[in-house]
Amino acid sequence: MGTKTVYADVKDLALAGKGRLRTEWAERQMPVLRQIRDDFARDRPLEGHRLAACLHVTTETANLAITLKAGGADVVVCASNPLSTQDDVAAHLVADHQIATFAIKGEDHDTYYEHIQAALAHKPSITMDDGADLVSALHMLALERFDDLAEPVRNWATRLGADERNAVVRGVIGSTEETTTGVIRLKAMAKDGVLQFPVIAVNDSYTKHLFDNRYGTGQSTVDGILRATNILLAGSIVVIAGYGWCGRGVAMRARGLGASVIVTEVDPIRALEAAMDGFTVMPIDGAARIGDVFVTLTGNKHVIGEAQFKLMKDGAIVANSGHFNVELDLDALGRMADAPPATVREFVQEYRIGGRRVYILGEGRLINLAAAEGHPASVMDMSFANQALGAEYLVRNGAQLTRAVHRMPEDVDRNIAALKLRAMGVAIDTLSPEQQHYLVSWDMGT
Amino acid sequence: MGTKTVYADVKDLALAGKGRLRTEWAERQMPVLRQIRDDFARDRPLEGHRLAACLHVTTETANLAITLKAGGADVVVCASNPLSTQDDVAAHLVADHQIATFAIKGEDHDTYYEHIQAALAHKPSITMDDGADLVSALHMLALERFDDLAEPVRNWATRLGADERNAVVRGVIGSTEETTTGVIRLKAMAKDGVLQFPVIAVNDSYTKHLFDNRYGTGQSTVDGILRATNILLAGSIVVIAGYGWCGRGVAMRARGLGASVIVTEVDPIRALEAAMDGFTVMPIDGAARIGDVFVTLTGNKHVIGEAQFKLMKDGAIVANSGHFNVELDLDALGRMADAPPATVREFVQEYRIGGRRVYILGEGRLINLAAAEGHPASVMDMSFANQALGAEYLVRNGAQLTRAVHRMPEDVDRNIAALKLRAMGVAIDTLSPEQQHYLVSWDMGT
Amino acid sequence: MGTKTVYADVKDLALAGKGRLRTEWAERQMPVLRQIRDDFARDRPLEGHRLAACLHVTTETANLAITLKAGGADVVVCASNPLSTQDDVAAHLVADHQIATFAIKGEDHDTYYEHIQAALAHKPSITMDDGADLVSALHMLALERFDDLAEPVRNWATRLGADERNAVVRGVIGSTEETTTGVIRLKAMAKDGVLQFPVIAVNDSYTKHLFDNRYGTGQSTVDGILRATNILLAGSIVVIAGYGWCGRGVAMRARGLGASVIVTEVDPIRALEAAMDGFTVMPIDGAARIGDVFVTLTGNKHVIGEAQFKLMKDGAIVANSGHFNVELDLDALGRMADAPPATVREFVQEYRIGGRRVYILGEGRLINLAAAEGHPASVMDMSFANQALGAEYLVRNGAQLTRAVHRMPEDVDRNIAALKLRAMGVAIDTLSPEQQHYLVSWDMGT
Amino acid sequence: MGTKTVYADVKDLALAGKGRLRTEWAERQMPVLRQIRDDFARDRPLEGHRLAACLHVTTETANLAITLKAGGADVVVCASNPLSTQDDVAAHLVADHQIATFAIKGEDHDTYYEHIQAALAHKPSITMDDGADLVSALHMLALERFDDLAEPVRNWATRLGADERNAVVRGVIGSTEETTTGVIRLKAMAKDGVLQFPVIAVNDSYTKHLFDNRYGTGQSTVDGILRATNILLAGSIVVIAGYGWCGRGVAMRARGLGASVIVTEVDPIRALEAAMDGFTVMPIDGAARIGDVFVTLTGNKHVIGEAQFKLMKDGAIVANSGHFNVELDLDALGRMADAPPATVREFVQEYRIGGRRVYILGEGRLINLAAAEGHPASVMDMSFANQALGAEYLVRNGAQLTRAVHRMPEDVDRNIAALKLRAMGVAIDTLSPEQQHYLVSWDMGT
Repeated sequence: MGTKTVYADVKDLALAGKGRLRTEWAERQMPVLRQIRDDFARDRPLEGHRLAACLHVTTETANLAITLKAGGADVVVCASNPLSTQDDVAAHLVADHQIATFAIKGEDHDTYYEHIQAALAHKPSITMDDGADLVSALHMLALERFDDLAEPVRNWATRLGADERNAVVRGVIGSTEETTTGVIRLKAMAKDGVLQFPVIAVNDSYTKHLFDNRYGTGQSTVDGILRATNILLAGSIVVIAGYGWCGRGVAMRARGLGASVIVTEVDPIRALEAAMDGFTVMPIDGAARIGDVFVTLTGNKHVIGEAQFKLMKDGAIVANSGHFNVELDLDALGRMADAPPATVREFVQEYRIGGRRVYILGEGRLINLAAAEGHPASVMDMSFANQALGAEYLVRNGAQLTRAVHRMPEDVDRNIAALKLRAMGVAIDTLSPEQQHYLVSWDMGT
Repeated sequence: MGTKTVYADVKDLALAGKGRLRTEWAERQMPVLRQIRDDFARDRPLEGHRLAACLHVTTETANLAITLKAGGADVVVCASNPLSTQDDVAAHLVADHQIATFAIKGEDHDTYYEHIQAALAHKPSITMDDGADLVSALHMLALERFDDLAEPVRNWATRLGADERNAVVRGVIGSTEETTTGVIRLKAMAKDGVLQFPVIAVNDSYTKHLFDNRYGTGQSTVDGILRATNILLAGSIVVIAGYGWCGRGVAMRARGLGASVIVTEVDPIRALEAAMDGFTVMPIDGAARIGDVFVTLTGNKHVIGEAQFKLMKDGAIVANSGHFNVELDLDALGRMADAPPATVREFVQEYRIGGRRVYILGEGRLINLAAAEGHPASVMDMSFANQALGAEYLVRNGAQLTRAVHRMPEDVDRNIAALKLRAMGVAIDTLSPEQQHYLVSWDMGT
Repeated sequence: MGTKTVYADVKDLALAGKGRLRTEWAERQMPVLRQIRDDFARDRPLEGHRLAACLHVTTETANLAITLKAGGADVVVCASNPLSTQDDVAAHLVADHQIATFAIKGEDHDTYYEHIQAALAHKPSITMDDGADLVSALHMLALERFDDLAEPVRNWATRLGADERNAVVRGVIGSTEETTTGVIRLKAMAKDGVLQFPVIAVNDSYTKHLFDNRYGTGQSTVDGILRATNILLAGSIVVIAGYGWCGRGVAMRARGLGASVIVTEVDPIRALEAAMDGFTVMPIDGAARIGDVFVTLTGNKHVIGEAQFKLMKDGAIVANSGHFNVELDLDALGRMADAPPATVREFVQEYRIGGRRVYILGEGRLINLAAAEGHPASVMDMSFANQALGAEYLVRNGAQLTRAVHRMPEDVDRNIAALKLRAMGVAIDTLSPEQQHYLVSWDMGT
Repeated sequence: MGTKTVYADVKDLALAGKGRLRTEWAERQMPVLRQIRDDFARDRPLEGHRLAACLHVTTETANLAITLKAGGADVVVCASNPLSTQDDVAAHLVADHQIATFAIKGEDHDTYYEHIQAALAHKPSITMDDGADLVSALHMLALERFDDLAEPVRNWATRLGADERNAVVRGVIGSTEETTTGVIRLKAMAKDGVLQFPVIAVNDSYTKHLFDNRYGTGQSTVDGILRATNILLAGSIVVIAGYGWCGRGVAMRARGLGASVIVTEVDPIRALEAAMDGFTVMPIDGAARIGDVFVTLTGNKHVIGEAQFKLMKDGAIVANSGHFNVELDLDALGRMADAPPATVREFVQEYRIGGRRVYILGEGRLINLAAAEGHPASVMDMSFANQALGAEYLVRNGAQLTRAVHRMPEDVDRNIAALKLRAMGVAIDTLSPEQQHYLVSWDMGT
């Protein structure tokens, strides 16, 4: 850590060595972000900016944070989920990069919000969010809805004078948001007229949601389930609640591993797609009776609750891969159970209900981060390229942007894809002038 | 035909009986359109309207035409492709439903445009297009670009006085368009400021392009290739040019039949999706050397031309499933060949180039309609539900719509999906009030 | 036909031109058989032999017959199924190759057996069978079980003196058999001690049953269903009865086209494989209630009968792709129906039972041959390479073989695969001497 | 451990608690073995037998060992691979079940053979092998080929008198063998006439190799690769060397996770199957140039060696999933490398060759056991049901069996499948008497 003191809260700085090796391993598979880091180091586009990033503290996020710092930003990182932190990575960021990091795997509710508070206390000009917890807290502050703040943030907020509070909020030129869930929240805020600054919906970039949500969530969710349980998916019945980009990613991977997949949905168009993709579609209550493994990815709450737990077979395994841990109604399950849950294997809790056993994985938090390592670096390469360029975009254009949710420009999006293909060694075609002309003309017919 | 005389041009009215049976068979799988037909018969929303539909004359189109007539429209149908007409169906429409139909399978270029002209002569208030040939001709008329009209239409147009011509164009309250290709043309027209009336892009409905383009084109294209050639796809290398909705449909079905699939693209995002979907992505020239079967679905011209034909292996099979027959440069192939092509099997033409043979299927026209029967009724059910409801929408709202390309309202789209699911016997979930509230709130976090 | 008179019974010799083109098209995809034909033409291994082939008369069979003739055999061909003959091919064999052919698509029961009788009257020294009908008739002759012979054969047999009958049977040095079904029959004959000559089970060659039964039946069965019905498989529930090589071929192709597939089985090991392959496994009665499309490939009788027809949904489509048309109990269905079946589309018969409709495809005969063109040439290339080499093997070794069912030697099998790979342009590795040594040694461990 | 002293060598008995929980978790998914354990506990078929099991010491093996003990056997367990032991499970067997266990994860070569020696010193009447190391050592003993024994075994063997050595070998009534690799070794021994006792090839049971090798190895190999590397498989090129049951399992799972899969083979029939299954087939040298991830499963040595390592791209990842760690020529790689390998992540070693980096996973030992947890319990349930019943079969029939490699009786095999299906809640059909009769008759034709 040299002579500089970094204010931070991590589990154990001694883990930094392992974290460094793992972060470097991830870096090998992040060629696009590497390119951006080189550009940033040369151009320093974030110079003079204080940046608070509330993200899953993984090896990929470490590479993003290092890139942002290379761009000149004064970066603070806090966890966006109590279970998703990789403690060795957090240590590495602090010890080797002097990046203020507040994240401990398994931290309790209060600690989680103390870390959020620490990020706010950084007085960021740019925020970077994964689920909108940071932005949401900022807005509670702005709207003086102190009661809606978790206690550690409320205490801090009320200690600040009104001027200081306003300064915190007004200092933000904009935020970026990583997830579908966060974008939905932010659009609701914009619709209610309360959004205080422009937001770049990184999630809405094609090079983000088409890849990270589908291929990233798809693989890492089944990876998390396998690491947690070591069950054989072939021959099992896997129930996927929600057929958005994440859900279809998991559905195709579960099938790819030999499971028979059932999809539940509330949207008729998605349900129809699932059916035409060869999946069995049925209401959640029907699925609850026959499923061996359940995964929720809906962005909604209590998708599996008392009614469903009642119907499940002995031995049913239930996981969530949606952003928030509200998709499973664990309170209800706790009330139904004969006794407190027993941990029968790491990340596996057994609830006994009469003669039946229901297994909850990773306490209902996103299973790919709780029991595995989150999205592979190769796919986060694109998501975080969008994050880094999104921060740069806010610096350049934030003043002109309305207080709404914006999408990254399509040419940036397309360029990220082109960089990725080049790094993969994949060449594609280009349009001839004749073909370009043909596409914009309308007078050539049959 | 009773005592009413229907002006029409079909191959042989004696085929009507077979056409009726086949049309009824299709109808069994079009429950959504059936429902709309019942509603139309009761409400007569198209009463008083003259409607010209330029569509592939198939059993599914017959059911649409019958539905439109049931809604009160005075319908005329013309072919949207010289090779796609099912002659028995054309006969059935004329003989059993007294619907004026102008379509003969294998008609030459002049006849094709005589049929377009006949549709224009109907003086439609609503047009329905599949590739925008009809609307395009109407606009050439409006813009007095007579030289750009095919001869049969030009002759007719120049015979009309200016007033009469204007009356034809001004009589149109709007059009619907079925295809991606047509929508691209129409948006180019709107951008150039020449579009004369509003257009409903039926293609842009989710219940159209997500299903028809993907599952419909996917299955029917491989079906067309199999009927034309009876080759084994397992173990062959299939090259798909274009990874739009149609291209990905064919790619997944070719893989589903055991082929090793190569994708070529010009768009980096789509190329990256193809790679992550497990397909091999490479430039068309590389693919040309190793492919056994080629299918173009790009909406562009000369995607496979002299450069590629030169590289192909002996025995290469080449088909187009894009809307227009410009995707293959058959003129170039004709010039390269040692002799005129020989028909070695129905829909298969052999070009000999030195010692090599290249096989072109269906003269480069959409192979699913040329060699098979087009999209299955079950998927056209939704596409044509959009068409029928699009016509009704134009009647109700056409006057208020701008001269631009519009999308069908989302609730109509969603309702079509819901009707389809119900007909398939598939039930889905609904949101609880608590869940609906959660989705629009932004203040509940981790 | 030149000046030689060929005794034959085909539909129309005028179809020969079309048959020739189609046979040549198939030949392009049969490089292994082409190689064997060249070898046969040089070596004439079948010189002096009379060969009766009871096979599906398709373009691929035509290439086999031409090959056998090139090898010196005096060949007669008769149909192995009343619905599978391609009349143009039959005409081509007679008109252009002077091969005696007895086969007419749609021939009735008596004509079918008159054709079998004509093949027997040829007094073959080698027989080639597809389902063992020819060999079975020969044995009824030998065993003097005249009552078990169909009338045309019985009449002929009883007209012959005992000596002449014996001469017919004793003249056969051996037979080859193409199908699983036939091999099961022949093994039953061998077990009962009645088999009169050695049989080469071509079906048991790896290059036959692993390919033809799986990839050939897989593709051609779905092809037949699509040609017969033009339904969309995506989103439908397809029930496959029997998970042998044929059944798994169809199951994987139906899934590959987007269907949700249910498998029914009587063998627990196969059922378990189907489940682990991700298919839903259940008893036929459960499947009958929910299936949209049914395909039988069990080699057994009445797999779908009254009990199942009673349970089916309105609109259920039922096909057989097993060798014999006994898998569906159509007599029972006929008795259940309100009226004789109506042909609502070529190869589709509608049975009405109360308010429900059940559709039988191709009269319950193997749907890939009834409604499509049978296995693609590329896969029959290997099956018929086995047939041709099997005939040669009988000539060389028949005298030494026991009256049992034999398998082709493995090196012949392996060589056919190697020839096929070479024709596909696929190279593989060879073992180094060190590796060969390692494989036969047992003393090198961990 | 009570008052009984168990001779054992495990890492840390304090891990027993965790091992117990994990073993019980596995037991939940082993219903067939559970049933057998209940039967064994009642009937004690192994009473009086000393049984030495040389197996991967995993949670599944623990359940087998417990079952064997319940059957009355005096069981000793030793590791069949230095890297595959789960130390908590070894501790559990000793501490909670008093089963003598010799296995430490990461043990060196000498320790490995000391453990083999300890198993031999148990003087087993039945041996149970996974790769034939134990049986092989027994035979070196019998043949007095002491130089071929690893040092710890040699020392022990030479200490024994000839009589005692003979007693050890002659005391064995038979062995069972788990793997393809072991069966190949044992058949070579039988062919060389040196096999000293009958062997039950558990691997050859359908309920073993069709399931464990395919679905077990398939899933657990990709699981091992993901845990070791956390790379994204979608969009990567995975090279599978060997298309036996294991190879096809991994190929289908790699594809199922979005990889583009290349297969290399030496057998033309398997190569052709791979091609028809849609995989790209090419020689290993071609594959070496383009692969991102390599997996060997051939049962042969040096499948990837100097020639291939030279051609690999920077960053290539190489794993072995074959039984022995000879498939990769790591000595050659070590010689080629600029420096000794660096461990850049657990189970990942980086070799630098000039500017390129090659990553070897799990030191070239079976990656599913080295980096993941081996086959899931659900599939080992059947494999170990075969083992347990194989031991019982040896007790009952060993005296009558020839000194050869035998297969388990088919009805035992079928019964295991039936028990498994029942446990999965899957019902299947049974043949009617009429159908049974049809299958054995040969006189019913077309």
